[in-house]
Amino acid sequence: MSRPPPARPGDPLDRVDTPALLVDLDAIEANIAAMAAFAQAAGCALRPHAKTHKCVEIARLQLAAGAAGLCCQTVAEAEAMLASGVRDLLVTNHVVGPAKLARLAALARRVRVSTLTADRRHVAMLSAAAVAEGVSLEVLVEIDAGDARMGLGESDLLPVARAVAQSPGLVLRGLQAYSGPFQHVREAGARTQAAAETARRAARARDLLRAEGLACPLITGGGTGSFQDDAALGVLTEIQPGSYVFMDRDYARNRDRGGGPYRPFAQSLFVRAGVLRARADGVCYVDAGAKALNLDCGMPEVAGRGDLSFTKASDEQGRIEPADPARAPELGAALMLVPSHCDPTVALYDTLVAVRGGRVEALWAVAPDPARSPPPDR
Amino acid sequence: MSRPPPARPGDPLDRVDTPALLVDLDAIEANIAAMAAFAQAAGCALRPHAKTHKCVEIARLQLAAGAAGLCCQTVAEAEAMLASGVRDLLVTNHVVGPAKLARLAALARRVRVSTLTADRRHVAMLSAAAVAEGVSLEVLVEIDAGDARMGLGESDLLPVARAVAQSPGLVLRGLQAYSGPFQHVREAGARTQAAAETARRAARARDLLRAEGLACPLITGGGTGSFQDDAALGVLTEIQPGSYVFMDRDYARNRDRGGGPYRPFAQSLFVRAGVLRARADGVCYVDAGAKALNLDCGMPEVAGRGDLSFTKASDEQGRIEPADPARAPELGAALMLVPSHCDPTVALYDTLVAVRGGRVEALWAVAPDPARSPPPDR
Repeated sequence: MSRPPPARPGDPLDRVDTPALLVDLDAIEANIAAMAAFAQAAGCALRPHAKTHKCVEIARLQLAAGAAGLCCQTVAEAEAMLASGVRDLLVTNHVVGPAKLARLAALARRVRVSTLTADRRHVAMLSAAAVAEGVSLEVLVEIDAGDARMGLGESDLLPVARAVAQSPGLVLRGLQAYSGPFQHVREAGARTQAAAETARRAARARDLLRAEGLACPLITGGGTGSFQDDAALGVLTEIQPGSYVFMDRDYARNRDRGGGPYRPFAQSLFVRAGVLRARADGVCYVDAGAKALNLDCGMPEVAGRGDLSFTKASDEQGRIEPADPARAPELGAALMLVPSHCDPTVALYDTLVAVRGGRVEALWAVAPDPARSPPPDR
Repeated sequence: MSRPPPARPGDPLDRVDTPALLVDLDAIEANIAAMAAFAQAAGCALRPHAKTHKCVEIARLQLAAGAAGLCCQTVAEAEAMLASGVRDLLVTNHVVGPAKLARLAALARRVRVSTLTADRRHVAMLSAAAVAEGVSLEVLVEIDAGDARMGLGESDLLPVARAVAQSPGLVLRGLQAYSGPFQHVREAGARTQAAAETARRAARARDLLRAEGLACPLITGGGTGSFQDDAALGVLTEIQPGSYVFMDRDYARNRDRGGGPYRPFAQSLFVRAGVLRARADGVCYVDAGAKALNLDCGMPEVAGRGDLSFTKASDEQGRIEPADPARAPELGAALMLVPSHCDPTVALYDTLVAVRGGRVEALWAVAPDPARSPPPDR
């Protein structure tokens, strides 16, 4: 029994079946243009991160606006993004395992492919895959950007960089200096300090490579929380923001320099949810819960309705409490929710409903997440 | 570019690409048999909840073991479960909106379909959909099982039940008396008290219906946390557990009567994750984060490795900290993770890799979640 699509182009918003993932086209186009203009003015290359949207059409808009290429987080994402026409793909992850390494190398037959490492044993795996496929893979050494995660400390950098430079099939392209947690440091001043720490470490690593005669043409990192600082600090040659296309409630919890919510871009992403139960006391339930919204960063907010609080979620339902029961939503009404965390919410969906001026303009596919391998009967 | 499947039947476990969702067939078969035997001995009908697994093959095993039918949480799930051969489907939710109501009514052409209501306006919507399709829909009135969620209090019960009984196209079948939160009450005694409160309310509602001459052949509810209490209390005529097929870390946080972890069933569900970064200090990172594991109930545990702690997750990575760095996993190793919450973790995947004795026996499709409408290019 085949499922109908959530909407058709030309449909008014109220005909979109719920729950559905929506993007406001005016808002996302403005966001893409604003970030492209910023990067150009700052003299910094822009390589947007496709892990946020997993959407070929959005990648095309970013490339048309001048992006130098795309970041992907997994091989499956990179494979999906080929359809955007991208020519320079960076997989910002450590690709391990024979199957995934072979797929990564196969991609390098079609476009320029770069990826990360931080371990000499891993360098050998990358080299073997490149040689087996007869391709060249470009490699960035991931440094610890200051958050003590997957990157290398200063003392371990050179042995790994040398191994890359000396391995057949591999080309050392530079450094990855990215901190996810630093994007979400709440106070603007502390966020700038965190970005400065990353820049200091990246500059030191670059100088160590150069002193060894090792090439370092690319130093990439930064995100939607830190991109202005990263550009001003002048060490990264490229920024890789992802969330700026959509924004989310968590980024709005960051503060700007004036102490207000950090909103350098417009909210373009929404989950449209329908009211399936409206209690007499005004409490109502919508058809979007933990299977339709990632809740790791808290509950969503109801767009344009500061008087409604999304207070709890079960797997398939969300509870909404009104400040004034007289203004509670009716049974069958629809609400637009602002997700608390955009990337993993998008990954829950197969379709992004693109709307403009209250009408559906297009349906865009969200590339399946690596967790979602094709089922046997497709 | 099409993605390869995560494994092929006959593959040894170490050839399964990561991250992957695995089910241990010996364990799930034992769980299904044990619950079926329990329900039969207790004289209670068993209608397993398919929201947990969304998998036709698992539904078939449950039906073959004597299940009276299946519960589904959404119309899309119910449509998917038709392929199991089920003849009696209960959608344990309030179906709202013309498109979904029409699909629900269309299902009733093929099998017996029941669903919930708690609102006279909603009863009119259900009736209109049944009449338009020329079918009969059976309806349960959802009562407040004691957790003050979507169900009706005692004083509102009769007007809604009468409306169902009097509406064309609808048949009053009884009561839904289910509390999700009560399944996760930690202490066994408190869980029994919660189940008793639900039973008290269900008995009172049943008596109110009967005093009005309204039929109440079915009183359904209960879950994996309360099923033994529900059966012993003798008010529910049917139990609808879901998680028992898989179990998860959150259910193991419940206590049994002796104060130990509540484990009436075997853990059969795992996420297999690969180590993509093994630091010199023993901390390692696996390729399963918030896009491969639902984390609303906390972090997963590493099966069989009490010395390893899954401490943090980013979207695509999980951080593992070893008690003893000398026993830390190597780069490229695979770990079996026990999800903290089974239902929404399963919903992240398209494929369930069914394994027995260390070998892949089958690949089973996970039905797409309603959030995941078909993308435009499929």
